[in-house]
Amino acid sequence: MKRIMMKTVLKIIFVGCCMLLTLHANEKVYKLKMATTWGPTLSPLIDAANNMAKMAEELSNGQLQIRIDTANKHKSPLGILDMVKGGQYDMGHSASYYWKGKDINTLPFTSMPFGLTSPEQYAWFYHGGGLELMQKVYNKHHVYSFPGGSTGVQMGGWFRKEIKTLTDLQGLKMRIPGFAGEIMARLGVQVTNIAPGELYTALETNSIDALEWVGPSMDITMGFHKIAPFYYTGWHEPASEMHFIINQKVYKKLPKHLQDILVASMRLAAYDMYIQNYDMNASAWEMMKKEYPNIMVKTFPKPIMDAMKKANEELIIEMTQDNALLKEVLDSQKAYQKKVRVWTQMSDYLYLKDNL
Amino acid sequence: MKRIMMKTVLKIIFVGCCMLLTLHANEKVYKLKMATTWGPTLSPLIDAANNMAKMAEELSNGQLQIRIDTANKHKSPLGILDMVKGGQYDMGHSASYYWKGKDINTLPFTSMPFGLTSPEQYAWFYHGGGLELMQKVYNKHHVYSFPGGSTGVQMGGWFRKEIKTLTDLQGLKMRIPGFAGEIMARLGVQVTNIAPGELYTALETNSIDALEWVGPSMDITMGFHKIAPFYYTGWHEPASEMHFIINQKVYKKLPKHLQDILVASMRLAAYDMYIQNYDMNASAWEMMKKEYPNIMVKTFPKPIMDAMKKANEELIIEMTQDNALLKEVLDSQKAYQKKVRVWTQMSDYLYLKDNL
Repeated sequence: MKRIMMKTVLKIIFVGCCMLLTLHANEKVYKLKMATTWGPTLSPLIDAANNMAKMAEELSNGQLQIRIDTANKHKSPLGILDMVKGGQYDMGHSASYYWKGKDINTLPFTSMPFGLTSPEQYAWFYHGGGLELMQKVYNKHHVYSFPGGSTGVQMGGWFRKEIKTLTDLQGLKMRIPGFAGEIMARLGVQVTNIAPGELYTALETNSIDALEWVGPSMDITMGFHKIAPFYYTGWHEPASEMHFIINQKVYKKLPKHLQDILVASMRLAAYDMYIQNYDMNASAWEMMKKEYPNIMVKTFPKPIMDAMKKANEELIIEMTQDNALLKEVLDSQKAYQKKVRVWTQMSDYLYLKDNL
Repeated sequence: MKRIMMKTVLKIIFVGCCMLLTLHANEKVYKLKMATTWGPTLSPLIDAANNMAKMAEELSNGQLQIRIDTANKHKSPLGILDMVKGGQYDMGHSASYYWKGKDINTLPFTSMPFGLTSPEQYAWFYHGGGLELMQKVYNKHHVYSFPGGSTGVQMGGWFRKEIKTLTDLQGLKMRIPGFAGEIMARLGVQVTNIAPGELYTALETNSIDALEWVGPSMDITMGFHKIAPFYYTGWHEPASEMHFIINQKVYKKLPKHLQDILVASMRLAAYDMYIQNYDMNASAWEMMKKEYPNIMVKTFPKPIMDAMKKANEELIIEMTQDNALLKEVLDSQKAYQKKVRVWTQMSDYLYLKDNL
């Protein structure tokens, strides 16, 4: 009798322990490491990464812990894709177009000249097939990619002299990297690249005549408005989207509800950054304009804009002629833009026109 | 010896059970009931409520379960605030301005004529003090209020005849409710209210000459485009925001991490609805225009717009002269708009101007 009771008691203990272990497994802590392209103070970009990690931890009740290494730590700001692909980091926060040298197909997911605005681009990602095309491109790198925060329309750059005609662009020395730089080069601009820390001095000493950075929220700390009075409106990055990436193996090992928390935190941090930067731009511009009332906002004259558009189209034709996947992505964006821009015109554009 | 062993075993079982109970308490399921103003098929409004509930359940691993009763069930579409305040429902999804009859201060959190656009309004909510002012207004109703999804710019309505001068508005019979209706009435419009189900027939049989509904995404199912060729652009609701509300007592009883999940799910569902509706509007407009190519998009001529703006300002002065809190909210919106619109002009507006 006592033996039987003892056996029963032991069975209960065994079952109890098993249940405890199961519950414990459900509450297992997952520690991920994320590398960012940004330094620790580069608002609002680093904020999007930090906010995402904070949300993931809060929403998971501490089960998801994401440690962030900024560029100051890992020293490889533009190597995020490689590090996440290779497994040195589980996740990354960067911008897709930084890897166009390794894989040109990653280019269109950040922003394209004369392309989609932020709400249009989010609509394309989430309802127009954009997100699926992005996974298709990133699949060969064994990572998933998600929108990670929009800067909104970036400004076209600071110029020390006004640009009135196409002739004014001939030989003009300008810092403007990437695809936009290639377009400018076709218009006769002498495109140069200079490290960010040296840009102010280069502009001040006339080593360069113009430069493109981001927009008021990030330009203000660089001080360009103190020495270049012409601030041109944007054409080249109407909705630059940052990206979160995650190693596919790491993602697949997470329990379903932690995957959901991660994906939701990334989507929310992305939208939040768009709104944060909208506010930061408004405040920074107000401050710049107050301190330097002589700054003038200019749009490039139509002949220049037309020449840029022509160069843009030529470049896209060259890029896509031997690349069916890139063509598929750009065609999808173009078709979506054709449809959505009519609505943007009827709604936001015509509303703003009467209420500036 | 055996007794001591038995005692130890029993102690282990007791401790084990206590741990199980504690873990169980941490995993307690919270069931909330939410009432919506919308019927079960009213996309995208009902989608925002459903998406929020789905996210809250997924992210909490089933700990938060929100049952949604649509208006078809509770039969009180415009009584959501009362029901949540009174505790019949824990939560609600509706739009703040539906309660302006009970508390005029709730009006400005949805949209104001000639006011903020969607990104501007989100920036005001989250970075310009808007959310805090909203809680201040809702505190007397013992509920918390959160943004619940933006329609973006709503259209100004369907007209059977073109409106060329202020005289064309004299005696015009139009269905346009709320604050916008009061403005139109000051311009000589005969403002009427008609149940949604009878609107099409009223317009077809000339009982009314014009009506305002929402925008292509929601207008398309009503069929107005088949009988009224003039579609006027919006001025009265540039960014109508829906709202989630929750009874303060219910909210305070939730564990901290479930509060976080709820707040994150609401914020995310709100942004998602804005983007979903952007896409839906683009698709619906494309369809309307294809089937009825004679529809013409029109903006009200400047003298009419100016008269509307004047009436709007007069109404605001009347409303706020004995209401310090409403004045505080509207002054905050106005000051934020003054700052942010300069940036919107430099960024979105000037970009779109060259890329329509």
